[in-house]
This record gives sequence, C-alpha cells and structure tokens, in this order.
Amino acid sequence: MTDPAQLDLLCINTLRTLSIDAVQQAQSGHPGTPMGAAPTAYCLWQCFLRFDPQDPNWPNRDRFVLSAGHASALLYSLLYLCRVQAASPSYKETGRLAVTLDDLKTFRQINSRCTGHPEYGWTSGVETTTGPLGQGAATSVGMAIAQRWLAATYNRPGYELFNYNVYTLCSDGDIMEGVCAEAASLAGHLKLSNLCWIYDANDITIEGSTRLTFTEDVAARFFGYGWNVVHVSDANDLEMLARSYEVFLNTDDCPTLIIVQSHIGYGAPNKHDTKEAHGEPLGDEEARLAKQAYGWDPDARFYVPDEVPAHFQSEFGQRGAAARSAWDERFTAYRRQFPDLAGQIDRMQNGELPEDWDSALPDFPADAKGMATRESSGKVLNAIAGKMPWLLGGAADLAPSTKTHLSAEPADEFQAPGQGGDYAGRNLHFGLREHAMCAIASGLSLSKLRPYAASFFIFSDYCRAAVRLCAMMELPVIYIWTHDSISLGEDGPTHQPVEHLASFRAMPGMVLLRPADANEVVEAWRVIMRLKDRPVSLVLTRQAVPTLNRSKYAPASGVSRGAYVLADAADQQPDVLLLATGSEVALCITAYEQLMSEGIKARVISMPSWELFEAQSQEYRDSVLPPRIKARVVVEAASSFGWERYAGCDGALFGLHAFGLSAPAKVVAQHFGFTAENIVEAAKAQIKRH
Amino acid sequence: MTDPAQLDLLCINTLRTLSIDAVQQAQSGHPGTPMGAAPTAYCLWQCFLRFDPQDPNWPNRDRFVLSAGHASALLYSLLYLCRVQAASPSYKETGRLAVTLDDLKTFRQINSRCTGHPEYGWTSGVETTTGPLGQGAATSVGMAIAQRWLAATYNRPGYELFNYNVYTLCSDGDIMEGVCAEAASLAGHLKLSNLCWIYDANDITIEGSTRLTFTEDVAARFFGYGWNVVHVSDANDLEMLARSYEVFLNTDDCPTLIIVQSHIGYGAPNKHDTKEAHGEPLGDEEARLAKQAYGWDPDARFYVPDEVPAHFQSEFGQRGAAARSAWDERFTAYRRQFPDLAGQIDRMQNGELPEDWDSALPDFPADAKGMATRESSGKVLNAIAGKMPWLLGGAADLAPSTKTHLSAEPADEFQAPGQGGDYAGRNLHFGLREHAMCAIASGLSLSKLRPYAASFFIFSDYCRAAVRLCAMMELPVIYIWTHDSISLGEDGPTHQPVEHLASFRAMPGMVLLRPADANEVVEAWRVIMRLKDRPVSLVLTRQAVPTLNRSKYAPASGVSRGAYVLADAADQQPDVLLLATGSEVALCITAYEQLMSEGIKARVISMPSWELFEAQSQEYRDSVLPPRIKARVVVEAASSFGWERYAGCDGALFGLHAFGLSAPAKVVAQHFGFTAENIVEAAKAQIKRH
Repeated sequence: MTDPAQLDLLCINTLRTLSIDAVQQAQSGHPGTPMGAAPTAYCLWQCFLRFDPQDPNWPNRDRFVLSAGHASALLYSLLYLCRVQAASPSYKETGRLAVTLDDLKTFRQINSRCTGHPEYGWTSGVETTTGPLGQGAATSVGMAIAQRWLAATYNRPGYELFNYNVYTLCSDGDIMEGVCAEAASLAGHLKLSNLCWIYDANDITIEGSTRLTFTEDVAARFFGYGWNVVHVSDANDLEMLARSYEVFLNTDDCPTLIIVQSHIGYGAPNKHDTKEAHGEPLGDEEARLAKQAYGWDPDARFYVPDEVPAHFQSEFGQRGAAARSAWDERFTAYRRQFPDLAGQIDRMQNGELPEDWDSALPDFPADAKGMATRESSGKVLNAIAGKMPWLLGGAADLAPSTKTHLSAEPADEFQAPGQGGDYAGRNLHFGLREHAMCAIASGLSLSKLRPYAASFFIFSDYCRAAVRLCAMMELPVIYIWTHDSISLGEDGPTHQPVEHLASFRAMPGMVLLRPADANEVVEAWRVIMRLKDRPVSLVLTRQAVPTLNRSKYAPASGVSRGAYVLADAADQQPDVLLLATGSEVALCITAYEQLMSEGIKARVISMPSWELFEAQSQEYRDSVLPPRIKARVVVEAASSFGWERYAGCDGALFGLHAFGLSAPAKVVAQHFGFTAENIVEAAKAQIKRH
Repeated sequence: MTDPAQLDLLCINTLRTLSIDAVQQAQSGHPGTPMGAAPTAYCLWQCFLRFDPQDPNWPNRDRFVLSAGHASALLYSLLYLCRVQAASPSYKETGRLAVTLDDLKTFRQINSRCTGHPEYGWTSGVETTTGPLGQGAATSVGMAIAQRWLAATYNRPGYELFNYNVYTLCSDGDIMEGVCAEAASLAGHLKLSNLCWIYDANDITIEGSTRLTFTEDVAARFFGYGWNVVHVSDANDLEMLARSYEVFLNTDDCPTLIIVQSHIGYGAPNKHDTKEAHGEPLGDEEARLAKQAYGWDPDARFYVPDEVPAHFQSEFGQRGAAARSAWDERFTAYRRQFPDLAGQIDRMQNGELPEDWDSALPDFPADAKGMATRESSGKVLNAIAGKMPWLLGGAADLAPSTKTHLSAEPADEFQAPGQGGDYAGRNLHFGLREHAMCAIASGLSLSKLRPYAASFFIFSDYCRAAVRLCAMMELPVIYIWTHDSISLGEDGPTHQPVEHLASFRAMPGMVLLRPADANEVVEAWRVIMRLKDRPVSLVLTRQAVPTLNRSKYAPASGVSRGAYVLADAADQQPDVLLLATGSEVALCITAYEQLMSEGIKARVISMPSWELFEAQSQEYRDSVLPPRIKARVVVEAASSFGWERYAGCDGALFGLHAFGLSAPAKVVAQHFGFTAENIVEAAKAQIKRH
C-alpha cells in the first residue's frame, strides 16, 4: 500500500479498531471518543508532535495531554503503534514498550499499563493523570508556562534548548468545567502561544446531546479570553486538521483553540452520534459493523497491519529521533559553554536540590510576641528561593496575605513580555482562580520545576480535585495554606477552616505540616524541600504566635519526625500528655507551665505532621506517646475528627464541632474554649480519670 | 433639601460613610468596594428593587445577592437605612430592625448582626451567605431558576404570583472564578431573563490591578454565553445606571450583565483606585479626607441625615409595600380559586412535606443478588417525587448513572420553552458543571424548593466550597453521590473515592448517609425528607448489593438512629462487633454467618450515619456498641481516618491508605483485602486480643 491517503486511513482505522477491541475485551470503557477523535490525534502525532519514542522523557519533547482521559484507549493505541519505550522509574523491566499488545488486551485489568484512565508514572508517554474533566486542560497551561519559563531562563543565543509546544485534546465536558475556564482565561492573559487546545466537539455527553445544557458560543468565549480560534468542520479532513495545526504553529501572540467537529462512535452504524457510544462497549455485533464500515475484517481482533507501525516509525518516529538527537548535541555544547546553567537543568530534571539550598535559612530568636507562621514562612521561602532558581510560584490573588511573593533577585513577575514582567519571572499571579492554580502547579511540577501555590486554607475547598490528582501523581508540589483556623478572626465562618485539616490528613499521599512557631517553620521547609514524590500542605497562621525559647524547650528539628516532645517533666515521667499542632502549641506550653507550677507533671507534644510521625519506628512513636499514659489532652482549633487515634479512647479533645464566627481572633478562641485555663482543667480531669 | 440629585447623593454618601465608619470602628473590613459601588446599589434599591422592608421574606420579593460578600458593610448600611425589619427565625426579639445602628457600630464583633461577611439566617435581608468568591453569583442562578419554575408551575392567568427578578452584585474576583463561569454558561443556556448580574468592575484585587492576571474581554465572554451585556462607564452616573437596569427589565430572552466601571475607595484621596482600599480600614486621617471629599463633616461618625431613611422609605419602601400588599390580595383570591396549589405553596414556604409524601415508598423483598443502592434510590426518589411536586433536581451530566432522572409525571425537563422542555420541568440538566450545580441547588433551596444534586462521589471534590456554604446556611439540600468506593472498578483511582467519607463527616452540619441495601435506602430517604435545616450526602453504590432478608435480620428502620444492630448473637452477648456501612455491611453479614457457624458470637452493626447516631442517647449508643466489648472490626472501603472513634483503641480497621486501582470491582476489593475471610480472621484475632 503506497497511496499516502490510504495509509493514513489505515493508521486511523487501526487506532479505532484497537480502541474498540480493548474496550470490548474489557467489557468496560469508552470507545466512542477514540473512534471520533482518531484522525485528529493521528494527524497531530504523525505530522506535528515532536516526540522521540525512544526517549519519552526527553525534556524538550512536545507534550500531548489527553484531557479527555476517558478516551484512554486512543492514547494507549498511539503509544503502542508508535512503539514508545517504557521509561518510567516504576518499570522494573527495561527495553519494554510503554504499552504492549498484551497491555491493550488487558485494558482496565489489574497490572495492565492500560488503566481505565491514563495514569502518570505508570505508563510512559502519559504526561499527566486525567479523567476528572477539566484537569488535563488546566494542567497543560502549567506545562506551557513551564516551557516559557525554561526558555526565558535557560535558552541562550544559538542554544534554543526549550522550544516545545503543548497540545491538549479536550472533550465537550472539559470545555464546560470551571477549572478549564479559569485556566483558559489565564493562558490568554499570559499569551501562551505555545499552547494548543484541540477541542474534540462531538456534541455528546452522558445525558445526551450537549444542546441539553451547553449552547454557548465557545469560539466567542475563547476570543474573549484572547485566544485564536480555528474551526475544523470534519474530524476526518486531515488536510484541514493539518492546516489548523499550522495556524497554531504560526501564531506567536496567543494560545490557539482548534474546534474539531467530530462524531462520537464514528463508523458504528447504530451508535454513531449517540450517548450510547460514550461510556460502554459497542457490543460484539456493533463492533463488527463498525469494522466493516472501516473496510476491516469484522472478525479480526487487535489486528495491526504491518504497514501501520512502520509508517508511524518513518514519520513520527524519525522526526522525534532527529529532533532529540539534534537537541542532545546542542545540549552537549551548551553544557561546555554554560556549565552552571546545565548543572541547574540536570538537578532540576533529577529532582535534586542545589547544594547550598539551605545555606541562608534563618534562625529565629525566642520572642514572646513572635510572628505569624505565614510571616516566618515567607522569610524562609525567600531564603530558599535565593539559592534555588527553579523554585517558583504564587497565590490566587493573595500573595500579600500569604506572604509568598519572592523579593529576592532574580525573581521578577511572570508575565508576557511587555506586560509588567517577562517569562523568566518567578512570581506567578493566578488571579482569583484557586482551582486552576493548583492544576497549573501540577503542570509546572510535571515539567520538573519546583512550584508552590498559595491561598487561604479555606479556599483549598476550591482546589481539591486538582490537589488530589497531584497526590495521585506523587508530585512534590508545595501548597501554602494560610489563615488556617478560627483565629483569622473577623472575616468569620465563611473564611474559617474547620474540617480542612482532617480532610487533607485523610487524603492518601498528602503530607500535611502545621508548624507551631517560626523555627518549626524553618524545619518544616527542610522537610518539604527534600520531598520528591509527595505534595505537601503547609498550614500557617494569620496571627502571631510566640517564637519558643529553644534553649528551654526541645529543638525544632523534631519537626522532621512529625511529632516530638517539646516540653517534658523533669524525670520524663509525665502524668499527662498535651498534644497540639500549630498555633495551639503555645497554648499548651502556657498550660504546661501552669501545671508544672502546681507540681503536675505534664508533657507537651508538638505534632506538626501525622504523616511524618506515622512513618517513624514504633519505638520512637511510643517514646513520644507512651502507651501507658492514658491521660491525654489534644488541642487543635479545628474539627477534632480523627484525633481519637492519638487521644486514645478517653482522652480530652479540644476541637470544633460547628462553624466559626465573626469576631476578633481572641474573642473567637475564647468563645470556643481555646484557653490555657481550660486545658489545665482538662489535664487535671484526665489525670483524675486515668 | 429638595433637589432630587442632591438627595440621591446624600443617600449614596451616607452609605459610603456608614461603611467607612463601620470598618474603621472594627479596625477590620473592606471599605473600598462599598465606597465605589454605593451608587450602583443605591440606584437599584431605590428605583428598581421590589422588596418590602416590613416583610423581608415575602416570597415574591426581588432578590439582591451580594456576591462580593466582602462589601458587607454596604449591604448592612442599606438594610439599616431602608429600615428592613428583622424576620429571621433566629431573632428572639420581634419588631427589631434587621440591622440597627448598634449592629453597624459593632461590625465584625461577636453577636453583631453585621458579621464580617453576610450570613443567611442571621441577618434578615441577606439572601445567601457570601464571601468565598463566585458563590453568590452561582447561587443566584439557582434563585432565577426557582423563580422560573415557580412561575411556570403556580402562576395562573390573572394570578401572576411569581414574577420576581434576581440581581447580583459581583466583583472582579467573582467574574474570575470558575464556578461563576459554569453558572453563567448555564444561565445563558436557560435564557434566564430574570437574572441580572451587576459587575462592579473596579479593576483592583488584593494583589493590585486586575491587569496583573485578568485582561480578557468579559463582555465578549458573556456574549458567548448568550447574555446581553450593558456597559456603564461611571458608577456615579445614576442616569446611565437606571437605563441599564431598564435594559435588563426590557430584555426577555436572556440574562443581563451590567458592567459598571467603578473606583474602589472612591473619594479617599490617597487610596482611591488602590489595593490598599480593598481589605483594610482607611485609617482615621484618610477617612476624614474621604468625608471631606463627600462634603461631609469629617468628624462625624455614623452620621445619618434625617432625610436619608425618609427618602428610602418614600420610594424603596413605598414601592415594596405596595407591591407586597397587592400580592397579598392576589394570593388571597388565588387561594380561593386554587386551594390545592395555594396549599402546596404554603407547605413549601414552611418547609413542610405533603401529607402523603411517603405513601408510595417501595418495600424491597430479600434478594441475594440485590441491586445497586443508586438503583433503589432512583426508585425511591421517583416514588417521593410523584407525591411532592416541588422536589426537583438533576445531575452534572450523570443522570443515567446516578439514577436521578424523574420519570414520574409531571416531571418534564427544565429548559427554556421550545428547547425540549419548559420552565415547569423538574429534571434539571447541569452539564459538566459540578460546582455550579451545588451552588445552584443552594439557590433553589433558598427559594424554598426541595432540590437534589447528583454526581459521582469523587466529583464532590469539585463542589466542596458550595456544599460547605450550604451546610453553613443550614439548607436541606440533598446531595446524591453515587459510585461511592473502589468498587466502581475499572474507571480506576481517578474515579474511586477514598478520603471523601471522612471529609464529609468532618464537615459541620452535614448529615452523611451510606445505606447498606435497598431497604436502608428507603429508610434513608425517610430521614432525608424530614430534615429541615441540614444538607445530606446520600452515598450510594455503583454495584449491586444484596437486599437483606429483614425477617432474619433487624428491620431497616434502624437507619433513623444512625446505627443499629443488624444481626446479633442469640443471647445478645456477642464476643465481637463488626461495624460497617454501605456495601461493606453485606460482607460483614457473610463473615457473621461464618463466625456463627463456627460457634463464635458476633454482632453486625450497620452504621449508615455517624451524625444521626451521635444524636442518640448515651443509653442507645451503649446498647449498640457496648463499651465492655473491645473486640471490634470496622469495615469500610474508604480511608479509615476517624474510625478509631468507634473501633476503640485496639480495634481492627479495614480501610484504605492509598488510592485505588483500575480493575473489575471484585478484583479491586480482593486486592485491598475486603473479603469475608479476612474479616473472619480479624474478628478471631480481636477476640483473642481482648
């Protein structure tokens, strides 16, 4: 077969039939979108995407994000046919394909690389975990920002190291999601002309036609965002698809949205353009009919004509290999000329820290008045950022409040050039777009930068879907959540977190740290910066907390163990344990001093992180929380949900069971019983009880 | 003073200075937006808003939603100057103003009606709690939908009972938020011409100029959504403001966005148009200067010229009183002619159920194969909906999967007339807009309808900010979350909830119910429908669960107590307790039968709701979970976070500590150890241990 058009069609139909067969075999999955969007993806991969199948982690590869994660079978079929190599650290075998035919045949079964939705880190070539709609698209904005930042920071005349593009395949559902809207608005503002969203408009969602709920003019909306918009009226028209990708490549002042009109379940005579093609197997008979419509042997299963991988190899593969090899040469020369910069790139790619990253960390003197932990965190963040150029981030319009603005040089604002900053800026401004901020932070992390994202703790509620995916992807994103309790005061219950500590502690993979004072903040950052595969929620106060006298109490380095004995009875045989986190630790210290003055032996345990504590040896944990001591008082200005784990069956819990209230911080704390006197009383009652 | 223009200005400046003084006195708050938006709000209230200050709960009142909740001082000043009466059930005193001058003087202090952000139910005239941006705007779409539904359902020729409008004051931040984008797209689709968003564009947010992050063409975007857009280039131009409101009133085929260019901190010579005017008091000197600029006595505080309340009374008050009194007459006549419909309206307004609401509830026969709880819930929901016309709702594009489509007559689709349904439809279609869906559900509930909102449990992550506000407002919204565990199977970890049960249990006010079988579903709905002041999360399986033989095991009516003994040792002296919820109850029953066959005395406790259980007497709780029995096994296919409360210190916990995986449900359950054999083993180990 030498007719190029026929060969194209053969490849496209192989993508379709592999997807159909994978879903059919699994008796589960989404065949319709792969069938409709196969030409769109084929044209992109075969003719435009710069991606070396031999090196799927090549830093300058174009990114392909399948935001329509339910169309995973399409991506797996592409990875298989393109012979993309496995290169994820989680692969034990080397020289293996990212996706084998066996993987496709075991789609959605345990241990298959072809999981129900694409999972980053499990399947090479999957750039980000997708499925929950809107997330991939928003994350891709982070990837595009990262490219711009890498280019502005590391490219040098004659050495264009980073010039990749980011392509994102979106579904109708993605385009409806708010997180996607936020991200699109920001991408337009930032003039990310390296970003191309391909909107596979098949006009069908689970409830039926999109006309049920979605009749807006998407093009007008995206024009409003400042994007260029291109229409392709038929997904099967490869020429128009190619032209539209060329329009994107020739657009240098804004992102591009390509709206491709497609047909879900294309080729299946009874399911074409219906919701039935979306989320369930076609059924044997309909699969046969679809194959017939493609000119396929209706009885063939997982059939791959020999020409197909060869054809992908000769174009997609050749182009990627050539580009990567040219890049390798370029980088070798760059390394000679700019060894420091190349060293940064190496460290960044390997998730390593600069050697002197912690050389400017402050040490805070004891101070009864103290400072807010958001304040000390801001100082620490800046001290690290001064040593680590690829640490960058920002807030959802709350940098002044979260103290997350980088003032150290070089740390300009990240903006499109000429808009009050440039693409080398390290201060990102997300606007009132918390959800997109977190998805974008994941995109930055997937691009090997070290990002932080900041907001008030309460607004983590806006971001949970993105944060959860980050935890699932094991990305070391740093979330900085300030104004962490009822003690934010006057703004009232709409702004006072209550259940949020519990909610994050319950999330797999997340490390939560709620330091008690400025020096615990320093230690918290020491822990954070060394994390390579877990996101962290750093939870900080709005209000000042005393900087504890560390010559009197234990050193803050105990933070790294999650919980430690901060103050103890002289004989280390306390009668009662006082456990607290964050701003409530100082309260327990006051109570402890009172108890000691009355001759009652107490121990204060600062417990900034459950997750770190639970990773310690049983011996250490028992030394901090001796099982024999049942008299325990837990103090945390939040829902006490979950604290029974450490309070034991009859411990006293100071927590919240209701929303907060609007009043000055001290009044609120008093109102809800967070006073040293109450803790002293409870401690005495506990001792009596046990 | 008789010059109308001067009188207008006097009113506007009184709003400004009261707001300045309230913030100044509190030394906390947001003066800038009230100063800039005062004319916008004044023109609306004085000339257009139909609202009777004597009866702030009049069902046909126009709604004014302050989505820019930080501008609360403006709303409180309006309520005070308009002499709006207190009519919230939470007021002890009668004949009191919703907001007194003392309240304004104690802005943001404990017990003041002037809380930091407006709180529904605490301050009459506050239509919804706002503060977290985007929420008020999205909720207002629900109010507009409710008006359309009430009108289509209850208005009769000559009896236009419901024809109110919904006005929403939005800030730059609101317009940036994704939830707002979702809601706006849906409002445009539904052609809600009774909805007017007033966008107070002061171009300043906390980080500075909106040009830092927000340079989109908002008008183009809203045109894309299908809205009409009107510009007012100066907020101080009352004539243009009035014209723009008239444009809204004359637009009958789409919602209206009025973009009003304003100046934050208007009149304050040094803070005008700066971010410093946003979230902190002006300071004494700047407050004086602003007052001078208004022609005010700079030393006057909380000064209210006599003419001002009188003027509001003569226009705003008169118009509202006349409209309400005409409506009362109309409703009296309506009641004579349509007693049944009037009775429905009465019940709805009082949060009462129809007498026969539960007369068609099914009773499910024992069935080992059983059915998914989403399936039985769909049947129950339909049985209730057939008896209760104002029960309505829908899903975020998942009605077929969540089984939440109402098939009973009359239950058409809610759509703009001619778009495949009409405004009397009770099946709402939200599209892929989970967050807006939940905010809209609150708007429906605030309008006294009884709404439900459905999605997969995992997607509750998209909605938490709206759900939390609902809980804070004590609204009886019904959230139906299906596909509730790893047992949804092949879709994999991106779709498998883990931490979500814990996250909702930790949320104040929320009632979570996870029924174990079809008959528990019936009982769960009995509980749900009787709730008047709490939202509920009904958590349901994707997969079939056995319908338990209730002649052998205890009746499902125990659900109403939150937890009950489902199966017990013959002598009611079990050696081990097996606690479970939802789909894991059947697993415990299998284990129980096995244990009993081996002569081991076990008790199975079905625990669908912690919140209901904790409201029971200590005696009842001890009868279910006898404190002396320490051998306990908890089984829930979710994060076990928090279960120590019931498992005790040494109980066995079957839960999850990681994300799920993509494979068929049974394989996943097996992989994570959820088998009857493992439970039996754990039970034996527990008995041995205790």
